Formats: sequence, C-alpha cells, structure tokens
Amino acid sequence: MNGKFFTLPEEKQKRIINAAYVVFADSSYQKASMSRIAAAGGISKSLLFHYFHNKKELYLYLWENINRISCEIELKYYKETTDFFEIMTRKILARCEFMRTAPDEYLFSIRALFAEPLEIREATGKSYKEVYEDAAGELLGSVDLSVFRPGIDVGMLLEEVDSYLFHSLWQMLSAGKLDPDGLERDFLKRVGQWRIAYLK
Amino acid sequence: MNGKFFTLPEEKQKRIINAAYVVFADSSYQKASMSRIAAAGGISKSLLFHYFHNKKELYLYLWENINRISCEIELKYYKETTDFFEIMTRKILARCEFMRTAPDEYLFSIRALFAEPLEIREATGKSYKEVYEDAAGELLGSVDLSVFRPGIDVGMLLEEVDSYLFHSLWQMLSAGKLDPDGLERDFLKRVGQWRIAYLK
Repeated sequence: MNGKFFTLPEEKQKRIINAAYVVFADSSYQKASMSRIAAAGGISKSLLFHYFHNKKELYLYLWENINRISCEIELKYYKETTDFFEIMTRKILARCEFMRTAPDEYLFSIRALFAEPLEIREATGKSYKEVYEDAAGELLGSVDLSVFRPGIDVGMLLEEVDSYLFHSLWQMLSAGKLDPDGLERDFLKRVGQWRIAYLK
Repeated sequence: MNGKFFTLPEEKQKRIINAAYVVFADSSYQKASMSRIAAAGGISKSLLFHYFHNKKELYLYLWENINRISCEIELKYYKETTDFFEIMTRKILARCEFMRTAPDEYLFSIRALFAEPLEIREATGKSYKEVYEDAAGELLGSVDLSVFRPGIDVGMLLEEVDSYLFHSLWQMLSAGKLDPDGLERDFLKRVGQWRIAYLK
C-alpha cells in the first residue's frame, strides 16, 4: 500500500476503512468491488487505487488490522490471572463485546477466514495460524497447569476450545448474522463442564 | 434432475458423476463449469444439461449422494458397542478410510461445506445440520451414559468432538490436501485424553 494514505486526516482514513469493512462484510471477496468501496467511502475510485494498489492489498490490510486489534484485546487477559478457564472466559466475553461494538469488522474477519479465492485464504489462514500459535505459547507459559488432572495435555484442550469457537463462527456466518449473546451463554455452560472434566 | 439419467448404463452414470466430483473438488463452485464436467465425463454439454437442468442441481445431487454414503458408513457403528469413545473412534477411522478410497468425493464434500455462494452454503449447511442432529440423537440414545462423571452433558461433548473434526477438515482444505493419516493419529491421542477427563 501507499504510505500517503496515513497522511490523510484521520477522520477520512477511518471513513474509507470503515466503508471497506462494510462492503467486504456484506459480500464475497469476488463480488465486493473497489468502485463500491470508493463510493461508500466518499472518494474517487482512482484515489482509492492510489492508496491501495489493488483489492487484495486493501483486503489484507484490513485483515492484518483486525488481527492486531483482536490480539491486543486477548493478550491483555493473559496477565490478569493464572486460571486457564478464567482467561478463556474473559477472552470470549471480550470477543462478544467486539462483535457488538464493531459488527462489520467482526463479520469481515469471519468471512476472511473462509474466503474462497485460494490466494486470499492462504494469506488469512497463514496469519491466523501464526497468531494462534503465538497466543497459545504465551498462554500455556503463564497459566497454572498444576490444577489439571494428571495426564492432561492443556495444549490439546486449548486447540479443542479454539475449534469449538471456530465452529461457532462458521455457524454465525452460515446463518448470516452474529450472535454474541448466544455464544456467551453457550460458552459459559461449557466452561462449567470443562472444569468438572479437566480439573483435579 | 431428469430421472432419465438413471436409465443410462451404470458405468456411464458413474463416469459422469465421478467427473463432476473431480471438477468440483478441484475448483470453486463458481469456477467449475458444466463444459469442463461434460468434457471430463465424455458426454456433450447439452446432454449433461438434459440430465441436470443447471449446475446447482448437479451440485446438490452430488452433495446429497455423499451425505447419504457418509451416513450409512457412520450409522452402522452405532449398533456395535455402547462405548461412546469407541464409536467416535470407529467413525473417524471409517472417515479416514473414505478419504483414502474416494479422495475427490471427500474433498468435494469439504469444499461444499465452505462454498461461498450463499444459495449453496444455505443448502449444504441445512442438510449437514439435519444429518448431524439425527445422528447425534441416535448416538446419545444408544450409548452407555452411566460411565461418565456426574454432571457431564454428553451432548455438549459430542458437539465439541464434531467441532474439532470440522476444524481439522477446514485445515485440510486450507492446506489444499487431505491428510487421513494425520487426522487418525491426532484423533487417537485426543480420545485417550477425553477418557481421562470425562469418564469416572
């Protein structure tokens, strides 16, 4: 992308970025056009192409941006307690809050995970995996593992909790709408069960 | 679809269906063309359109066909034992065997779950959910629940096991190749952990 984008007044940057999130959240990568984004952001199409050389570049910028914000939100919980399930719970509550306050950004990020053009899914899948692995390493290094039953591999459990979340996100995408309240309720029920199953 | 398709010699039906699986397994719904399928199946495009009125009809026929076969394979395990984890294990081993013997069909079915046109995902998502709920009801009605720790909701556990599988399938799709050996190894490790966590 062209660094000049950041010399625009912040309000204008935000308007363009928000327009892009709304358009990409609303339709597939293929169907979302730069013309529609430019129109929604209130700039000319040629200016949009001046800042972002092509659709893929804009898309991956939006993706990295969301990834960074999500990470910041989640990582801060890792320092507050050493209780694995408490950290998971705070993480989910924060995620649900993110869904409520920035639905277009959130819907965009789910869509991006499942985006169909291979070039896009390769990029999003790769950075999702990296972020996930970094966060998992950080988490497992800081929680109290001594409270788990003997023989439990907490890394495997974490992968399963994340798979459950992943499936919930796919269900929302399939249903065509976010459901933070439903996810919150369902997750809290499961945490209770995991405590019974996994803790001494 | 046109019932006349079934009056074709069986060998010819199979050739057309297999060609369709290969083409749809290889590219997205949008990009897979009826011309390519006709060419690969050794019939004219107009004849293919005579049997299947449009691409969507052919696609959903293939999807229902795979769903039926998968169900038959999985349901038979429900009668062999009342051990929940043993049933899950046999189901996964059968799934991995299916991947090995019919990779195009299997890859097609994963792709179909994540297909991007909303009309397609709505159809595949709906029947996947129905099949899943029927199978879950059947399974929970026949396994021995008394071996689980008090307070465990086996239905929730089943959903999590299925979410883990779902995530594994998405990973294969993202990596662009099936990995039945990896899934088998990983699953067997997890079953050991689930037994420690969930059983008395």
